[in-house]
Amino acid sequence: MKIEDLKGRIRNIPDFPIKGVIFRDISTLIHDPEAYRFTINHLHERYKDKDLDLLVGIESRGFIFGGALADRLKIGFVPARKPGKLPWETVEESYDLEYGKATLQIHADAIKKGQRVLILDDLLATGGTLGATVKLVERLGGIIDEIAIIIELTFLNGRSKLPGKNIYSLVRYDSE
Amino acid sequence: MKIEDLKGRIRNIPDFPIKGVIFRDISTLIHDPEAYRFTINHLHERYKDKDLDLLVGIESRGFIFGGALADRLKIGFVPARKPGKLPWETVEESYDLEYGKATLQIHADAIKKGQRVLILDDLLATGGTLGATVKLVERLGGIIDEIAIIIELTFLNGRSKLPGKNIYSLVRYDSE
Repeated sequence: MKIEDLKGRIRNIPDFPIKGVIFRDISTLIHDPEAYRFTINHLHERYKDKDLDLLVGIESRGFIFGGALADRLKIGFVPARKPGKLPWETVEESYDLEYGKATLQIHADAIKKGQRVLILDDLLATGGTLGATVKLVERLGGIIDEIAIIIELTFLNGRSKLPGKNIYSLVRYDSE
Repeated sequence: MKIEDLKGRIRNIPDFPIKGVIFRDISTLIHDPEAYRFTINHLHERYKDKDLDLLVGIESRGFIFGGALADRLKIGFVPARKPGKLPWETVEESYDLEYGKATLQIHADAIKKGQRVLILDDLLATGGTLGATVKLVERLGGIIDEIAIIIELTFLNGRSKLPGKNIYSLVRYDSE
């Protein structure tokens, strides 16, 4: 299997969640042992010699890939979650959605100053979620080695919300 | 590290989410590379020769452990999610909470008749969530090899909602 084959393992669902949008469904990728293993192998190869301390995975699909990759890299996992889920003291960031706002939290003691962090999510769309995660990590003094995503929707220009950051995506879509 | 040491890596938070409850916080366990690796190693050892086809992980903390274990076991991952998250045709089950109801869905094409399934979540409390997941898997014809959980609150008697099922927990609490 090659990285070019991953698109064939992602299901395309027109008009979800709203009309005109094609949803890129990774549930078929993780359902396929070969494709799922390939994805984690590939990311493991990329990061195994980077001397990372922590992986920050974003709720919820980022937990699946992130849980696996943190295990492979033998590093700790830090969940970035929606409000009300984390039980300890948190730091939080709000960000704009197309309609309204959303908020993301991480535990305030989860990252120590100078720790090297990989951020992982399944999708880079408009960049709001990842932008908030970057702010949370940096507010706690973490050093972001890279942001890894499975799917990048390049036409939404999410990279503009992540200035100066290393960003690595496995699969890119240039239009809906 | 031994299995008896895992409790020391779980943070106890009194009065979360409500007064009188001690929340058992696994974020400290997954943050600790040794404890996280030990947990996944232990589960991997238990299930590696069981000839499983799929792991069903329950949103959201079940995604972290489940994502890692499915990768190790070289099997596919099926997410059980709250309503509105899965983009394809789903089956769903509702179950009672202390106040009100909750619903869980999985994709209708995620499990085929006769496939051998491991269900994994972080917590067995009253058993509502896992009971609904069992029904979803069996409705699609899946054969449940076992239900694995990290933490079991035995005093809530969640096993009574999972009659006849093999249930394996790593850490047990017999009272709040």
